[in-house]
Amino acid sequence: MGGETRGPEDGEFAKIRRLAALFGAQSAPGVTVGIGDDAAVLDPPPGRKLVWTVDAQVEGRHFRRAWMTFADVGWRSFVAAASDLASMGADPWCALGSLALPADVGDGELGELTRGQAEAALDVGCPLVGGNLTRAGELSLTTTLLGTVERAVLRTGAREGDGVWIAGAVGLAGAGLRALIRGDSAGELDAAVAAFRRPPVLFAQGRAMRRSAHAAIDVSDGLAQDVGHLASASGVAVVLDEASLTSHAGEALARAARALRERVLDLVLAGGEDYALVATSSEPIAGFTRIGDVEPGEGVWLRAGDGSRRPVGAPGFDHFGG
Amino acid sequence: MGGETRGPEDGEFAKIRRLAALFGAQSAPGVTVGIGDDAAVLDPPPGRKLVWTVDAQVEGRHFRRAWMTFADVGWRSFVAAASDLASMGADPWCALGSLALPADVGDGELGELTRGQAEAALDVGCPLVGGNLTRAGELSLTTTLLGTVERAVLRTGAREGDGVWIAGAVGLAGAGLRALIRGDSAGELDAAVAAFRRPPVLFAQGRAMRRSAHAAIDVSDGLAQDVGHLASASGVAVVLDEASLTSHAGEALARAARALRERVLDLVLAGGEDYALVATSSEPIAGFTRIGDVEPGEGVWLRAGDGSRRPVGAPGFDHFGG
Repeated sequence: MGGETRGPEDGEFAKIRRLAALFGAQSAPGVTVGIGDDAAVLDPPPGRKLVWTVDAQVEGRHFRRAWMTFADVGWRSFVAAASDLASMGADPWCALGSLALPADVGDGELGELTRGQAEAALDVGCPLVGGNLTRAGELSLTTTLLGTVERAVLRTGAREGDGVWIAGAVGLAGAGLRALIRGDSAGELDAAVAAFRRPPVLFAQGRAMRRSAHAAIDVSDGLAQDVGHLASASGVAVVLDEASLTSHAGEALARAARALRERVLDLVLAGGEDYALVATSSEPIAGFTRIGDVEPGEGVWLRAGDGSRRPVGAPGFDHFGG
Repeated sequence: MGGETRGPEDGEFAKIRRLAALFGAQSAPGVTVGIGDDAAVLDPPPGRKLVWTVDAQVEGRHFRRAWMTFADVGWRSFVAAASDLASMGADPWCALGSLALPADVGDGELGELTRGQAEAALDVGCPLVGGNLTRAGELSLTTTLLGTVERAVLRTGAREGDGVWIAGAVGLAGAGLRALIRGDSAGELDAAVAAFRRPPVLFAQGRAMRRSAHAAIDVSDGLAQDVGHLASASGVAVVLDEASLTSHAGEALARAARALRERVLDLVLAGGEDYALVATSSEPIAGFTRIGDVEPGEGVWLRAGDGSRRPVGAPGFDHFGG
């Protein structure tokens, strides 16, 4: 795809030429040299910081072919990486994709994978400008992205008294994943499965929060767990409001939860496949819903309708207890 | 290691904390946020271009555990990526490492892998400032690096009349790889095996050539093949001089070739494991050896002592004919 392929592999250079034709149609300001040399050459925009991340999606661990098309796999792999930039309030710039392909992934499947990557790259405005292609025993897609920002929103800045705000679905894609694992194709789960296959990247929401947010994180490992990282990094406690979470989750998740015989709240707290954004701010953020408060202390707490609280993740609280 | 780990995996966060302690000791100018947030935050040096690459090393394809220590694997994976920056005349800046670990790679092995990465990063002055950690069916290490440069040396600039210059061993690491594949542990092969396990990154040589070089490439797929890429990208022919190649290869490769019953010239032309640098320039380059000439035409040619020429890679020319 970009730079080069390691090891003289029959037909790999032909693959790279085809990928160059696919991705060469995309471009970004400041990209001086894209696919075709040892490395990409970029002119960074003056006066801005760079935000840089890498993420890997591995077959059998993050996805199965039976669950989605190769184009969906390409899309998801791109989104999983891009979400890290959105959560820092960054603007997307450009990306490199490193593909490891087992022998049973032929040119047709590779074309679908990269079409999904290219669709996501185009959708979020972050072109693929190079990469790497290698044979491997298992299929994996590793994506590294650069974004730019004036002031990055970190995990560490949450302040006591901040509200906790969320943008994007949470729990829905995780419900879709459960449906796929169980092989449950009930119509009530369609929205959930679609959410798993094609999560969006919330760059617009990231831009909306970066002016006022004191801290932010993207939800990739599960809402409870990632909010826990933010709380720990900031040295605060986060109290999440049950009713607000359930209300934010909405009707699509309620339907999916019924079909799966799971509790909505469990799906919400464990959900990490949607790549929602969570930010803390002392003022409302356009497009975000308030789901809790930053308080002195530590850990993540759940506030019930009667005002009582319990720690999230404490013994007895089982996300998938069902 | 950096940003985050996908999926709630027992003990992964403890791993990340240990890696943060290992890599946190390294730092680079302009790295505002390293390991521990969603992404690294960087202040690019004003007035310079960025050079950006990604490379993957996969067990069973690029290395086997029987051939080298886990620390060697970490070292080699870093060098394979860094070499792409050296060949563009760039200065190293910083790196992200994405590790995919099978179940039989425990904390001890992970510690060795990352020690090798950290040693290479320290050696070339390019600290690891983040990354990703995931479970997988097979071991792979994907490294993405940023370098900076005023003017990147591309593959495309070779001019008729340029000399072709090389820095670094070529063929020796490939000979070591053959020895490892064959299980041949003759003492004459020690230097070759060492060259495979711990290739250097030629940043100093890349800096030396960037002032005068018209084009350059790193030799990762084999000298003949990579020089062919440069010739093709520049629209020229490259004529390599047999005697100069043999002389540059030196006594260590001659010894290894005898032990392997291979021809020195075949090892040199096929050698791509050393990450040598090849540049074209109209003037000598300090630390480089002249091995040929840029001429009108296309393809890569070999000039014998009697002045006759034959195309490299044409039918009848078998790199491993033995």
